[in-house]
Amino acid sequence: MTPPAVSTSRSRIATLQSDLRALSLDALVVTHLPNVRYLTGFSGTAGAVIVYRATCTLVVDFRYETAAAAVLAESSDRPFDIRVVQATYDDTLSEALIQSAATRIGIEAASMTVGRYNRLANAFARREQSTSSPEAPILVPTERVVERRRAVKDAVEIEILREAARRLSHVARGVPAFVREGRTEAEIAADIEMSIRAAGFERAAFETIVAAGENSARPHARPGQRRLQRGDGVVLDFGGVYDGYCVDLTRTLSVGATASELSRLVMAVKEAHDAAIAAVKPGMRPSEIDAAARDVLASHGLAEAFGHGTGHGLGLEVHEDPRISKLPGALPDEPIVAGMVFTIEPGAYLPGLGGVRIEDDVLVVADGCEVLTDVPIEVL
Amino acid sequence: MTPPAVSTSRSRIATLQSDLRALSLDALVVTHLPNVRYLTGFSGTAGAVIVYRATCTLVVDFRYETAAAAVLAESSDRPFDIRVVQATYDDTLSEALIQSAATRIGIEAASMTVGRYNRLANAFARREQSTSSPEAPILVPTERVVERRRAVKDAVEIEILREAARRLSHVARGVPAFVREGRTEAEIAADIEMSIRAAGFERAAFETIVAAGENSARPHARPGQRRLQRGDGVVLDFGGVYDGYCVDLTRTLSVGATASELSRLVMAVKEAHDAAIAAVKPGMRPSEIDAAARDVLASHGLAEAFGHGTGHGLGLEVHEDPRISKLPGALPDEPIVAGMVFTIEPGAYLPGLGGVRIEDDVLVVADGCEVLTDVPIEVL
Repeated sequence: MTPPAVSTSRSRIATLQSDLRALSLDALVVTHLPNVRYLTGFSGTAGAVIVYRATCTLVVDFRYETAAAAVLAESSDRPFDIRVVQATYDDTLSEALIQSAATRIGIEAASMTVGRYNRLANAFARREQSTSSPEAPILVPTERVVERRRAVKDAVEIEILREAARRLSHVARGVPAFVREGRTEAEIAADIEMSIRAAGFERAAFETIVAAGENSARPHARPGQRRLQRGDGVVLDFGGVYDGYCVDLTRTLSVGATASELSRLVMAVKEAHDAAIAAVKPGMRPSEIDAAARDVLASHGLAEAFGHGTGHGLGLEVHEDPRISKLPGALPDEPIVAGMVFTIEPGAYLPGLGGVRIEDDVLVVADGCEVLTDVPIEVL
Repeated sequence: MTPPAVSTSRSRIATLQSDLRALSLDALVVTHLPNVRYLTGFSGTAGAVIVYRATCTLVVDFRYETAAAAVLAESSDRPFDIRVVQATYDDTLSEALIQSAATRIGIEAASMTVGRYNRLANAFARREQSTSSPEAPILVPTERVVERRRAVKDAVEIEILREAARRLSHVARGVPAFVREGRTEAEIAADIEMSIRAAGFERAAFETIVAAGENSARPHARPGQRRLQRGDGVVLDFGGVYDGYCVDLTRTLSVGATASELSRLVMAVKEAHDAAIAAVKPGMRPSEIDAAARDVLASHGLAEAFGHGTGHGLGLEVHEDPRISKLPGALPDEPIVAGMVFTIEPGAYLPGLGGVRIEDDVLVVADGCEVLTDVPIEVL
C-alpha cells in the first residue's frame, strides 16, 4: 500500500481528535488494524495507535521497528510518534496511557478483547494502589468512532477504488471463458484468483466463491470438486485488494440452457439490483435502499429467498460501513452521504434448486451514484 | 477441509466437557473460529459453539444454515445440535445460555470482544430483573482452554500435517529457480504462491515474504518492487493450508556470491537451527528449546540480532500453541509433549546489511522429533 501522505494522515488524526473532544475522551486506543492503517499508513499484522487530544502514538513491536522507523524517516513531521513494545503490547499500552495522565480512555469495543481490557484495567488498578493517585483512568467502550469516518472516502481513496473497480471489471469480463462443462468449481476459482493477481491486485479480497448447481443456493459456498454440468447456474463472487483497498463483484452465469425457474430468478434479481442502484443518493437511509431491492423480490414471491443484506461498504476492509440492510439492523440507519462506496448485491436462493446473485460497486455522488464496476450482466 | 469424523468431533467435545468440570464451569462459549472448526468441522467465517457439561450447540447464521444442515444430515448422531441466528449472534447466544440455566459461563477472553461481553452481560442483567431469578449467570474469562487441547495433534491431524509438509518441501525445492537477478520481490512471491496452489494447497497460509538485500533485515517485510541484484541475500518465507492445516517454511538464498558478513550470519543461524532441533523432545520446556538456538547466536555475537521467538505451533492456525520463545513469555512455559507440531526458525538481522532465517517444521515424537519438512539448506 502507498502510505497516506503526511497531510492525509495528519488530517485524519485531527478529525479523530475533534471526535475525542465531542465524546469527552482524553484518548482513544485504536486496536482494529484497518483503523491503525487508516490513521498512520502502518500496515503490519500487529500494532495499535493511541490518539490523544493533541498528539498521537503508533505502538509496534520489534518485528516492525525498522519498517516503522522507515515510515517515520520519510518525513520529519509525521503527525505521530512511534513507541516500540519491549515486553507485551498490554504493558506498553498501559505504561503510555498512565504516563499521559489521560483519565477517560476510549477503547474500540468491537475489536478489543476481554483479555486485553482486563489486563489494562488491572494495570491501572495496580498503579492506583501504588500511588494513591486521586483520579484513576477509566476505560470507556466506544463503537465505530474511526469506522464512521472511514465510511466517507476522500479524493485519493476514491481514485484508488475507481481504478480497482476498473481492473476488477476487466477480470470479470474474462470469467465466462473459465466457466465450461466438466471443470470443477475449484479450478475456476483458481483461474479467477490468478487473473486477479495478473490484473495488478495485491491479492484476492476474500476466498473466491464459485458455486454451481445446487451449491449456488448457499450464499457463501466454498468452491469444491463438483464439476459443471449442462444446465447449471454458477454464482461467481470475487474481489481484489488494490493499493490496500477492496472491490467486490458477483455474476451468475449458466452452462448451456438452464431451467426456466432459474431464468425467472435471474430476471427478478436483476430487477432488484437495478431498483437498488436507482435508489442510491445522498440522504437515503440504508434501509430504504435495501427495501428497494427487497420489495422487488417480494413482488416476485421471493421475499423468503433473499436472506442477506443488499450491500456493504468497501475500503480498507471488504465489509465495512455502511451496511445496506433491513431494519432492525445492528447498526444505526444513518442517511448515506456523497463519498461512500458500497456494494449492491441482491440475491435469491432456493435450496435444492440453486441461487442467483448480481453485485456491483457504487460511489455515492451529489445527485445519485456512479457505478464503479462495468461488466455486462449475462442472462441465464 | 474434510470435516472431522463424527467420532473425532465427539471425542474432542467430550474432552472439553471434562475440562469444563475441572474448571467448575457449566458452559464454555467458544467464539474463536479455529476452535469452532476443531470441535464441529464447521468452517464458515462466522459462528460460535456453546459447550455444556453434557451437550453442545453450534450457532450459525442464515448464510450457513444450508451448509450446517448438510453437515448435520451426514450423520444422524452428530455430537452437537444446530441453532440458527434469527436477529444477532448476541441475542441467540444469550437466549440459549439463559434457557440452559447455566450459571458459571466461561468465555474465551482472547477472542470475545468487549462489545459482545457487555451485550451478553446486559442481557443476563435484564433477565434477572424481569424474573428475579435467584442465581444470575456470570461470565468467567478463560484463556487457552481449547487451544491447549489443539496443541497436541491426533493421528488424523499428524497425517495431514506430514502430507502438507511434504508438499511444501516440493514447492521449496522449486524456489531457487525463481530467484534471479533483475526480478522483483513481488514477482517471486507471486511465483511461489502459484506454486503453492499448484501443489494442492487451498491457499497460502500467510502473505509470502520475499525480502532482498537490506529489506531482509526486516523479519516481516512485504514483497515490493525492489529488483534482485548480484550479491543480495534473499529471505523467502512461505506456507500453505492443506485440508485446513498450515505448514510454514523459510530459506535464505543468495544471488551470486554474497558479502562474507552474510555468509557468517547464515552459518550461525544454521548452527542455531540445528541446535534447537536437537533439543526437541518430550519434557523439554519451550524456553529451553529457544535457549538452544539463542545461545548459539549469542556465542557468535548475534544475541541482539535475534529479536523474535524460535518457533510457533502449526495446525488450524499458522501461529498457535506452543510458542517456542524465551522467558518471560506471555504464555506458560509448559513442557512439550509428543504430538505437538511447531516451527523452528531462528534468524539474525543486521539493519542496513540484511538478515537470514532458516525454518523447518517438526513433530515431537517419543524420543525427539521428526523433521516434517525436507529441503536442503542452501548456503549463501
